[in-house]
Amino acid sequence: MEPHGNLVHVIRQLELALRPRFADACAAHAMTAAQCTAVMVLQQSPGITSSELARRSFVRAQTMADTLEPLVDAGLVRRERDPRHGRRMLLSLTERGVAAVTELAPAMAGIEGLLLSDLSPAERVALADYLGRCRRAVDRAGR
Amino acid sequence: MEPHGNLVHVIRQLELALRPRFADACAAHAMTAAQCTAVMVLQQSPGITSSELARRSFVRAQTMADTLEPLVDAGLVRRERDPRHGRRMLLSLTERGVAAVTELAPAMAGIEGLLLSDLSPAERVALADYLGRCRRAVDRAGR
Repeated sequence: MEPHGNLVHVIRQLELALRPRFADACAAHAMTAAQCTAVMVLQQSPGITSSELARRSFVRAQTMADTLEPLVDAGLVRRERDPRHGRRMLLSLTERGVAAVTELAPAMAGIEGLLLSDLSPAERVALADYLGRCRRAVDRAGR
Repeated sequence: MEPHGNLVHVIRQLELALRPRFADACAAHAMTAAQCTAVMVLQQSPGITSSELARRSFVRAQTMADTLEPLVDAGLVRRERDPRHGRRMLLSLTERGVAAVTELAPAMAGIEGLLLSDLSPAERVALADYLGRCRRAVDRAGR
């Protein structure tokens, strides 16, 4: 049977269920969940602007600015002037930022392992593919 | 390639991306996102207690109590004494509550349609199956 509206609810419930574990893993590295999300997006897409990072993290620009400040102060994220645009600042991870994402990986893999514990390897690959395509579809639709 | 830790991040991003749309759909029926989640869980599982509803909605008992109060006041949710346990109160949707969930359905289906727009019918069915199994695995693991 094709789903009809319920997957939005299921994704919300999954996120709510995983949130405390995700937050705990982030807190163990002195980050909030929002900060972890930001560094994970920056690792995938270095050299983007704060507003682009906000868009990709699905939060408002001001929220992202507040999220970033402690990361810059802690030396995990670097702001550099875009050589092609005088006033535009580009964000990337510092070496410490890269190390933080690397250190987070085992905890994230542990949470994911729990999530996927009833799926076969082939099903895990298919799920990752489907969710990636869902994300691109939502991303394309804008906010 | 098997996923390694990234699916937790993807699910979080999907939820963040869908959240404004979900909240808008709930607001159109004078409910918060948390209240919508509660009525959707109650439709699936009528006759549960508030603490069980909190557990299944992955929120704290006090948070659920605050979420429920306006729903009871608005006549969407009914509390009834459990005939088998003198002091235990069981929750269910009233007729108005059932109608509210029914009215929400087209908006939820619309959001889901956007989410699934790049997946074939067979892939949609598989995704719903996988996510359901993920939810059960997380549910089994407790908080």
